[in-house]
Amino acid sequence: MTQTIDPPSTTTPQSRVETWLSGFEDALRARDVDRAAGMFAATSFWRDLISFSWNITTVEGPAGVAELLTGTLDRTDPSGFATSEPADEGDGVTTAWFTFETAVGRGRGLVRLVEEDGEAKAWTFLTTTYELKGHEEPRGDRRPMGAQHGADKDRTTWKEHRQAEAESLGSTTQPYVLVIGGGQGGIALGARLRQLGVPALVIDKHPRPGDQWRNRYKSLCLHDPVWYDHLPYLKFPDNWPVFAPKDKIGDWLESYTKVMEVPYWSSTVATSATYSDESNEWTVEVEREGRPLTLRPTHLVLATGMSGKPNIPELPGQDVFRGDQHHSSAHPGPDAYAGKRCVVIGSNNSAFDICGALWEHDADVTMVQRSSTHIVKSDSLMDIGLGDLYSERAVAGGMTTEKADLVFASLPYRIMHTFQIPLYEQMAERDKEFYDRLEAAGFDHDWGDDGSGLFMKYLRRGSGYYIDVGSADLVANGEVRLAHGQVDHLTEDSVVLADGTELPADLVVYATGYGSMNGWAADLISQEVADKVGKVWGLGSDTTKDPGPWEGEQRNMWKPTQQEALWFHGGNLHQSRHYSLYLALQLKARFEGIPTPVHGLQEVHHLS
Amino acid sequence: MTQTIDPPSTTTPQSRVETWLSGFEDALRARDVDRAAGMFAATSFWRDLISFSWNITTVEGPAGVAELLTGTLDRTDPSGFATSEPADEGDGVTTAWFTFETAVGRGRGLVRLVEEDGEAKAWTFLTTTYELKGHEEPRGDRRPMGAQHGADKDRTTWKEHRQAEAESLGSTTQPYVLVIGGGQGGIALGARLRQLGVPALVIDKHPRPGDQWRNRYKSLCLHDPVWYDHLPYLKFPDNWPVFAPKDKIGDWLESYTKVMEVPYWSSTVATSATYSDESNEWTVEVEREGRPLTLRPTHLVLATGMSGKPNIPELPGQDVFRGDQHHSSAHPGPDAYAGKRCVVIGSNNSAFDICGALWEHDADVTMVQRSSTHIVKSDSLMDIGLGDLYSERAVAGGMTTEKADLVFASLPYRIMHTFQIPLYEQMAERDKEFYDRLEAAGFDHDWGDDGSGLFMKYLRRGSGYYIDVGSADLVANGEVRLAHGQVDHLTEDSVVLADGTELPADLVVYATGYGSMNGWAADLISQEVADKVGKVWGLGSDTTKDPGPWEGEQRNMWKPTQQEALWFHGGNLHQSRHYSLYLALQLKARFEGIPTPVHGLQEVHHLS
Repeated sequence: MTQTIDPPSTTTPQSRVETWLSGFEDALRARDVDRAAGMFAATSFWRDLISFSWNITTVEGPAGVAELLTGTLDRTDPSGFATSEPADEGDGVTTAWFTFETAVGRGRGLVRLVEEDGEAKAWTFLTTTYELKGHEEPRGDRRPMGAQHGADKDRTTWKEHRQAEAESLGSTTQPYVLVIGGGQGGIALGARLRQLGVPALVIDKHPRPGDQWRNRYKSLCLHDPVWYDHLPYLKFPDNWPVFAPKDKIGDWLESYTKVMEVPYWSSTVATSATYSDESNEWTVEVEREGRPLTLRPTHLVLATGMSGKPNIPELPGQDVFRGDQHHSSAHPGPDAYAGKRCVVIGSNNSAFDICGALWEHDADVTMVQRSSTHIVKSDSLMDIGLGDLYSERAVAGGMTTEKADLVFASLPYRIMHTFQIPLYEQMAERDKEFYDRLEAAGFDHDWGDDGSGLFMKYLRRGSGYYIDVGSADLVANGEVRLAHGQVDHLTEDSVVLADGTELPADLVVYATGYGSMNGWAADLISQEVADKVGKVWGLGSDTTKDPGPWEGEQRNMWKPTQQEALWFHGGNLHQSRHYSLYLALQLKARFEGIPTPVHGLQEVHHLS
Repeated sequence: MTQTIDPPSTTTPQSRVETWLSGFEDALRARDVDRAAGMFAATSFWRDLISFSWNITTVEGPAGVAELLTGTLDRTDPSGFATSEPADEGDGVTTAWFTFETAVGRGRGLVRLVEEDGEAKAWTFLTTTYELKGHEEPRGDRRPMGAQHGADKDRTTWKEHRQAEAESLGSTTQPYVLVIGGGQGGIALGARLRQLGVPALVIDKHPRPGDQWRNRYKSLCLHDPVWYDHLPYLKFPDNWPVFAPKDKIGDWLESYTKVMEVPYWSSTVATSATYSDESNEWTVEVEREGRPLTLRPTHLVLATGMSGKPNIPELPGQDVFRGDQHHSSAHPGPDAYAGKRCVVIGSNNSAFDICGALWEHDADVTMVQRSSTHIVKSDSLMDIGLGDLYSERAVAGGMTTEKADLVFASLPYRIMHTFQIPLYEQMAERDKEFYDRLEAAGFDHDWGDDGSGLFMKYLRRGSGYYIDVGSADLVANGEVRLAHGQVDHLTEDSVVLADGTELPADLVVYATGYGSMNGWAADLISQEVADKVGKVWGLGSDTTKDPGPWEGEQRNMWKPTQQEALWFHGGNLHQSRHYSLYLALQLKARFEGIPTPVHGLQEVHHLS
């Protein structure tokens, strides 16, 4: 390459990016891995969502880039890198959106350049595939006609076609993909697979779509704001509440399932699943409205909730306790407990929500805090934590949901905490009076191991926090009593803590969290497969409940696992929306017989 | 005013519009009606959607402007006219979007200026109100919070609130507005009233929302394309078919009703209604799932279908005919008529649709054409008739549904045919071979009295055309037989035409159209009220089935009628969407006690 690269400081952001992209493309076309890798800064991150790796993976530094390209470049055959809007510059970083192609797909990406050794080098680089060539979704100018114009004696109407499809599915035809769990994750994926023409079926144990929300405690509202919560294809209307009540979300999910024509079986439970390495298919026994049935899907997706199976501690005296006791996930709500003595063990989201609702129903409530908890006020989280990407302000500034998702995805997990820490410092400052009161009340509060706050706790361990929508004040002002320590045992009518404190109780709620999602696989498939797959969720950050080594991405989510044809899907509405795209495209490619060699399949370091 | 106005040709479009708007506002502020009226061209049109007139009205020329302003200027107190995007110029016309305020509302408008006597004068001027001050809709940054943060022992959840509301409505509380008819018109209006906080109730005779579509013949799809069909607030997703099948639209309407929280009673029929000038309320007897109930709304909206009541001709021999006979609106579909001899009387949309479906089911079909019909091919209508405003191309060019609706609304009815004629000339050219074949088959085809085609026929008479989705070819090639003339009588097994032609028949379908919508008022309220209101629909164009005098707007639609507190709403999906806004705001203003003096209340020239 004889081209002279101007020092970054004397060029425009746009020309700097164009020069970098064309230089990168030249190197890739020449299959010159070293030259391409040399265009990345010493500290740099390339995150690839299925474009090169057929995996969700992040590599680091020139060496990581070289390793990724060595394994994938030839078959990926990338080309056509071009900015899709003018590049931007700030704080010494040049940022640009770009598009590109591979042998089989079309992609979007985001690059951030910094100056190193007098040259513009990539600091972060995101590549994502949004569609497969020849398999573009029927949307916009590719939308279906609907009406079949003309006169046709063999006409099948939309309704007849749907009825025939519903009758054959699971009997004369098999779904290529079976999705177990029909919450937001399952139906978002179901909608995408439907759009992509992949025969799929979503099954769920509840009587109606949306019951996953409807059946929870009655004052529950979403803790994430509306701009963060859109599903694929059909956005909430602009009169939708910021924090939607659970029954309203339930109704939306039910309507969504119908409008998007997601094949969905309610009142259906999967009782066992086994994979045959010979036939390359699953045998899944299900009970549909009580009737047993065998399904034979090629792929199995567990979308049964990122929380995994409930953790219920085994305690001496549980057998003699005369009151009600149940895990938070089985808590029926506060109605029956007015005037009763309620002990809630735990101090995270569920514990606070349940304590608040019990207090509102005139129960006598004690929270048992066993370890420190991170609390942020919902308003502060919304303003400071999400406002730049997901807010009315962001929408007014031209930010779309799709773009916000990619900006979010472009921030490498390895350094994400460094972006998060200052935000939580702002929240600590803004809500200082609140935290002072909380600590004065004896509440053991933390900001995460490294002060990076709620979102990192969510990504690392999926627990250890409460988004305060009002119940924290009940603890701060003593309306909900606070006790500390581990539970030693139960008596007929009390909970006894390790320090001997006895808490009289008519109700004990174990708000004691959930296990790893591979627990679902242990129940449904086998312990052997659960162990083969290993722990699901977390980054390997070597912080509390997220042991190292560093994994680079969330373990086993939305990407191939060590068990052929077994996938995990889920998370909050944002993750259900965004990552369902890449999971759906991975499944579509397999359905169409497009080769999908996986680069860097996740290793297993922990069993649960 | 001492300001010098540059000749239009030497100024920019933007400055020309700014000068005109500020001059107009100066004249209005000075209450100088003559000066303001003098700013309109000799041939000019001011269409006002409730901003000045609390009516839907078009005035013509400086004299009309003077008359409108004399009656409305003082109380309207308009101000703040400003362009909302840069003005545009073409073919000697300067076009600009603007915003403005009145004493009670905020508005949007569109002005087209031409040069006359060396000055820029208004040729067309559209003023519309989109919200009332102090009564802005809870959308976007005004959207509801949803969650009630904090701890509250008297908390009512969204579900409890909705249940309590549903239980009290019609018993302890009365709807301010009762909407009879829950098709797209009724629910679009219901959604807007809900948003505006006006207590309303939509009732419909069918078991489920959407049944208005589901119950029609099975191959029916929308004849208008998706871009034209969006409902308020919640747009169809971009995978929605161009022409949606009827069952899919039915499902959408049902979901929409639920998502938008429209108070809706299914299986409910209104049996009588009377208005009291003393209590200023209606007494409406209804049967809800068979149980009688009295409602006392302040306003009554008939949204029972723009087609009005079925016209069924009285013919000698109907009592002796042994086969099936029914109006097209009661046709059960073709399933029972395979191999039967079917005579369909009429040659408009319903007749073609029914003939096509019968032919597809192997019936022997004859169409009886009584008068000439206008046919356009669906594709041509979509490309040429709607493409600039409602198409994927328009969307790609930045056209929004809301903007397209206002552009459409800005074209004065008086001269609309002059814009339409060239479009239909293009269609005649494009589909010449088709029309030649149709005429060769003996079909009596027209392009409307003045060659202005389908849309003007729709606005003027709501009949006389077929949007060809395939059945016209069956007539052209003789698969469906064609007969001509009036029906003289029926025998036991045939239809006999005026010229003596006898058509053997097992089935007679009267695809003979519908009466004026005030027929619904005659049935529900009284003939006296129906006559007081007069004919509904049509422009007074003095063309076939739309007798003069010129009315300026569609008769009695979406605006006050001669019967206090009685309103008519409906039309296609476009009209249901767009005009429901102005009807909802008129009702909201009355609900809030905002004075709404009506300027130019429609006179009655025809009873039906």
